[in-house]
Amino acid sequence: MLNDSFLKACRRQAAQHTPVWLMRQAGRYMKEYMAIREKHSFLEMCRTPELACEVTLQPVRAFEIDAAIIFADILLPLPGMGIELEFAKNEGPVIKNPIRTRADIDAVRAFDPQRDVPYLLEAIKMVKAELNNKVPLIGFSGAPFTLASYIIEGGGSRNYVEAKSIMYKDPDSWHLLMDKISDVVIAYLNAQIDAGAQVIQLFDSWVGCLGPDDFEKFALPYTKKVVNGVKKTVPLINFGTNTGTYLHLVKQGGGDVIGVDWKVRLDEAWKVIGYNHAIQGNLDPVVLFSTRAEIKRRVKDIIDRAEGRPGHIFNLGHGIILGTPVDNVRAVVDAVHEFSV
Amino acid sequence: MLNDSFLKACRRQAAQHTPVWLMRQAGRYMKEYMAIREKHSFLEMCRTPELACEVTLQPVRAFEIDAAIIFADILLPLPGMGIELEFAKNEGPVIKNPIRTRADIDAVRAFDPQRDVPYLLEAIKMVKAELNNKVPLIGFSGAPFTLASYIIEGGGSRNYVEAKSIMYKDPDSWHLLMDKISDVVIAYLNAQIDAGAQVIQLFDSWVGCLGPDDFEKFALPYTKKVVNGVKKTVPLINFGTNTGTYLHLVKQGGGDVIGVDWKVRLDEAWKVIGYNHAIQGNLDPVVLFSTRAEIKRRVKDIIDRAEGRPGHIFNLGHGIILGTPVDNVRAVVDAVHEFSV
Repeated sequence: MLNDSFLKACRRQAAQHTPVWLMRQAGRYMKEYMAIREKHSFLEMCRTPELACEVTLQPVRAFEIDAAIIFADILLPLPGMGIELEFAKNEGPVIKNPIRTRADIDAVRAFDPQRDVPYLLEAIKMVKAELNNKVPLIGFSGAPFTLASYIIEGGGSRNYVEAKSIMYKDPDSWHLLMDKISDVVIAYLNAQIDAGAQVIQLFDSWVGCLGPDDFEKFALPYTKKVVNGVKKTVPLINFGTNTGTYLHLVKQGGGDVIGVDWKVRLDEAWKVIGYNHAIQGNLDPVVLFSTRAEIKRRVKDIIDRAEGRPGHIFNLGHGIILGTPVDNVRAVVDAVHEFSV
Repeated sequence: MLNDSFLKACRRQAAQHTPVWLMRQAGRYMKEYMAIREKHSFLEMCRTPELACEVTLQPVRAFEIDAAIIFADILLPLPGMGIELEFAKNEGPVIKNPIRTRADIDAVRAFDPQRDVPYLLEAIKMVKAELNNKVPLIGFSGAPFTLASYIIEGGGSRNYVEAKSIMYKDPDSWHLLMDKISDVVIAYLNAQIDAGAQVIQLFDSWVGCLGPDDFEKFALPYTKKVVNGVKKTVPLINFGTNTGTYLHLVKQGGGDVIGVDWKVRLDEAWKVIGYNHAIQGNLDPVVLFSTRAEIKRRVKDIIDRAEGRPGHIFNLGHGIILGTPVDNVRAVVDAVHEFSV
């Protein structure tokens, strides 16, 4: 690996600089991405290895980032599970047959990565060949709770009434569904590892709607199951948002790296998580809409809070927001390297 | 006051039982409310004292709740400030001329409660007369940050890009706007107190999008200003959501009572806030979609966490959600009284 700073940081080994990559770094804020997106639907891009490979590489070419992340979506396993998936124009995912009953849960099909997402595995192989060891490639999956909430709600949600209703009224069905989803996630991630992914990230973007007791009882056991079931040959990043009030529980889910949002200062978060984990984060994505000077000031603040301790991976606290100026993405990447030499 | 348990708890005095009221207790989950709403727009209801009075009283008649809250909206002061406000059908507030520039901020007009919200002050007087000291009446306002975010974004927001952009790129303008809004909130709340409100609540529903440093620098000073500027003759509840990672900062904003959401266990939150404040909360509103047995179990858990210490006001962690079964609202209220005798 020509640039192994990211892999080293995942293992809490000293690296030449603080590695940086940005969630949703391949995306609509880049004109190179939009040029392809204008000709293809989002799902077409995911399902065409050449296109997924190309947009995965775009930010690697444009910025001095320390990792690539495969262009994909956390909902790609759904059709293999028997759950229809569409992306409505500018509206995000829509699931036509959401899972609401025990019969729905029983009908969820076993997921087979080779059969159901061959395009993703092929894309990973293509990216690996193109990268030629320039930087490591990250594979990823939604965490069980976040996948369950999409599958039950049928799309994004404000209050997660349907998901929590199953959880509260019929916990047996909830646990059955989460167990099934955990098996899907394990198979999905192991297939990505076999195809060549060198780091794995679990995205638990919506789990922060739960209070601490519900998190512990209804989500945490399945994150643990996934972490235990995924091959130990590559580091795993356990990322969630809005979990800052119970990071002491989040870390129990395991993973080499815990990803945090911007609601807790990095030094305070790391102290709670413990220095036997690496940490990833935690710039507010909206800072990228501000000035270069403000970006540099805030990047430096986060780097300073890591106190030079090996095991800090710089990232945003959530994905890059649509409309983010490309120059400000570059400013973040460059500032991380400038301040962490 | 025939039932003064709520007023006593606000002052951390022992009461006959734990008082309970529910944010958005007057609302669309009640058929009595819908019967009026079908004939009038939301703003018409707010602006017609007889209607506002009637829907304020509906939950007081239906449940054994320990407080009434005046039917109003946090955005009612906007037109007086020169900001046009509409409620789109089923879509929440829309502001046609959002505040984005220094010129916009300079043009914000001084707010005069007697001129701009006479209907609200009249409604408070009518409710007081009708209540006839049965339970206390709560007046309320949005907190400065939440009002600023609405005014700048033009409505609800996912990432608060416009609000944070002003904050990050032009902090002087941000501070000027927040200062003006604080003056509005102070005048708005003092007028409600003069009209007869017996407790005041500040709603900072969206401030939790800020990291701790931004909260401390850009929001907290204005909550403090409001708390200092409001008449000390009635207790003040300082409520925010998604602030669980920095309750130690939230309490610095002041207020007799700190309101918390369900992301921190009540005992842990109270410990951080300190026992020199009363505490309000903190049931997940979605629990009201579950069974009576589960509701009772969770109400008891929260009551138990208060450990019989005077100064706990039972509430949800955020407002009642549309579609909540009326019987389950009653189950919460009754369970609070049952378990806290």
